[in-house]
Amino acid sequence: MIEVSKAIEIVEANSIKMPVQKISVKKALGYVLAEKILSPIDMPPFRQSAMDGYAFTHSIRHQYDIVGTSQAGDHSNIKLKPTEAIRIYTGAFVPDDADTVVMQENVMANEDSILIATMPEKLANVRPKGEQIAKDDVVFEANTLITPAAIGFLACLGITEIEVYKKPKVAILVTGNELVAPGKKLKKGKIFESNSIMLQAGLKTAGIEKTKVYRVKDNLKSTKKALKEILKKYDIILISGGISVGDYDFVKEALLQNDVKELFYKVNQKPGKPMFFGSKKETLIFALPGNPASSLTNFYIYVLPAVKSRMGLSEIHKTKVIRKLTSDVKNTIGKTLFLKAKYDETNVTVLDGQSSAMLNTFAVANSLLIVPENIENYVKGQSVTLLPID
Amino acid sequence: MIEVSKAIEIVEANSIKMPVQKISVKKALGYVLAEKILSPIDMPPFRQSAMDGYAFTHSIRHQYDIVGTSQAGDHSNIKLKPTEAIRIYTGAFVPDDADTVVMQENVMANEDSILIATMPEKLANVRPKGEQIAKDDVVFEANTLITPAAIGFLACLGITEIEVYKKPKVAILVTGNELVAPGKKLKKGKIFESNSIMLQAGLKTAGIEKTKVYRVKDNLKSTKKALKEILKKYDIILISGGISVGDYDFVKEALLQNDVKELFYKVNQKPGKPMFFGSKKETLIFALPGNPASSLTNFYIYVLPAVKSRMGLSEIHKTKVIRKLTSDVKNTIGKTLFLKAKYDETNVTVLDGQSSAMLNTFAVANSLLIVPENIENYVKGQSVTLLPID
Repeated sequence: MIEVSKAIEIVEANSIKMPVQKISVKKALGYVLAEKILSPIDMPPFRQSAMDGYAFTHSIRHQYDIVGTSQAGDHSNIKLKPTEAIRIYTGAFVPDDADTVVMQENVMANEDSILIATMPEKLANVRPKGEQIAKDDVVFEANTLITPAAIGFLACLGITEIEVYKKPKVAILVTGNELVAPGKKLKKGKIFESNSIMLQAGLKTAGIEKTKVYRVKDNLKSTKKALKEILKKYDIILISGGISVGDYDFVKEALLQNDVKELFYKVNQKPGKPMFFGSKKETLIFALPGNPASSLTNFYIYVLPAVKSRMGLSEIHKTKVIRKLTSDVKNTIGKTLFLKAKYDETNVTVLDGQSSAMLNTFAVANSLLIVPENIENYVKGQSVTLLPID
Repeated sequence: MIEVSKAIEIVEANSIKMPVQKISVKKALGYVLAEKILSPIDMPPFRQSAMDGYAFTHSIRHQYDIVGTSQAGDHSNIKLKPTEAIRIYTGAFVPDDADTVVMQENVMANEDSILIATMPEKLANVRPKGEQIAKDDVVFEANTLITPAAIGFLACLGITEIEVYKKPKVAILVTGNELVAPGKKLKKGKIFESNSIMLQAGLKTAGIEKTKVYRVKDNLKSTKKALKEILKKYDIILISGGISVGDYDFVKEALLQNDVKELFYKVNQKPGKPMFFGSKKETLIFALPGNPASSLTNFYIYVLPAVKSRMGLSEIHKTKVIRKLTSDVKNTIGKTLFLKAKYDETNVTVLDGQSSAMLNTFAVANSLLIVPENIENYVKGQSVTLLPID
């Protein structure tokens, strides 16, 4: 049995980045860049007006004749005398002869001429060519997360394809003779199988859209055979159930017989203690406890960071939140506790119903309060650190 | 022109919940419940062992004969004498004659009998029927957000279908003769169109997967005609570009001629001032500025909360984050400023490059620092409130 901090460390150390792939920028949200991107163009590609107004050459004059128009999309390089200006619109090309744009609000205009009421500074309202980025400058370093803004920036430079780390293919293997699919009739002694659909939803929050679910009977032979197939095809395997100490738990044995290397088994925590973590080549195997709330806890603590790490993300843990406790919290068992909690702008409340079988509490929680194994109690009003799970 | 706080209020007041639909629990992640859900079963449906161990009737005896086995999934209601116990596994049915389970770690066992070394309390390790939830008790109130845990809880009760608020159908209308699709050749005076792909990515972060993009020429007739069609089919319409004061901006006119009610036009903010917000029946229309960074700012401040509100979410704004400023911030213009910023565990840095055309800053920011119009300066070290945008 190892401590939680060590277990987290081992998971991180073994979560190797996925191979790279080319992907359309359109579909790249949530992926991580695997290459440094240089700008193929100057942005803006020409001197651009930042305002609707009039372009002219800055001087002591306040009156100018209007000799043309430049709309966004135009590229007529109108020749201007020092006494002349053109009507110009936001985003439009500024002719080479003009150096300044005056906002239309600061001008008295008739059809043929303007009188500038408030003279702007020289060069005002003209965006220099390449102001935002020059050709061949670095757009993004490798390992940048692709956000909506990053997609917009790549697109505005005309970039349509980038190289990113692939998302891991994930399989969920469900064991347990007691399990019945929701929607079917619940016979005596059976319960509905809910972990696979719950874990699939959890994976979706990290952008893993499709997860294959396999079901096997609760015996060594079936489990071993299924694992043999699955280990060939997937980058991350979640096994639900069958990992505690009972005689009827064959999962660990089936893993070892498939040459999966044990990296740890059992963590000094509550809930979620009976967890196995192993690897075979670069594939990671998490055998999670069958209890739904334990399973989901370990999903958030171990699996989600591993998924993010394999996707190339550098920030694989959610930013912690600090809040004041609304009640005392005791830890009498010397294990790390993960307590379902709900925080608001200032406080955090540890919820009733922390049993490892209970999902209802989890469904109303927005965070886990982590009480390390060496902390015996927190007191009401104390600031504590939370892991958000929303 | 109105203040930001008023604009936010108007958007909220007009963002009416979508109609409801039945949906498979499997696909319900991120949706909001439109009905109260009652449990169709007791959970657990029978008295369940919480441990691997032995079930017996609690007494002063420490020695028991083993007369059978109950595995998870079994339902053999073995008769037990006071001197008898059965081998039992986590999740398995506890026979009516037993009231207590002793963990196997606390027992010395041979094939036929056990000696309990550490006697548990009476009723220990037995989960009562209906402990988590009883039949007909409330599972979730209406308006609950469907998280992975909620999906797990619904599934474990055998629920496969729920009633939720629909997601809004969103269209993006792009105007601007200066725009060229990324991947095409960039002619002089033109720029690449990036707002639609950026806004689509932003909508994806709220679970709006498919967004139709329409493109029209920069004139009243085309814009009016396109809007007529789009207004019939969509719940939210984003218009990109064409809303500032220039003569060539036809969007507002096209909206009004299509009987869109103006709710506000122009907000006292920087960037993002030239924005129009209106409605026609329950459809919301946001005409966003053409500048990419302005467009994305207003997307986060106004559009995303409206989308969430229409989906039935009660928390439509991200939880604010409070951090210490690494530099002074001045607001000399009497407008609300939205400054691209990056925060870590303790501090926040306002980034260089706040121009409304610049997306590169946005791509490395993880938050917006909101400086209200009536605040003239924040000083280095001061705690300020941020809107996270990750």
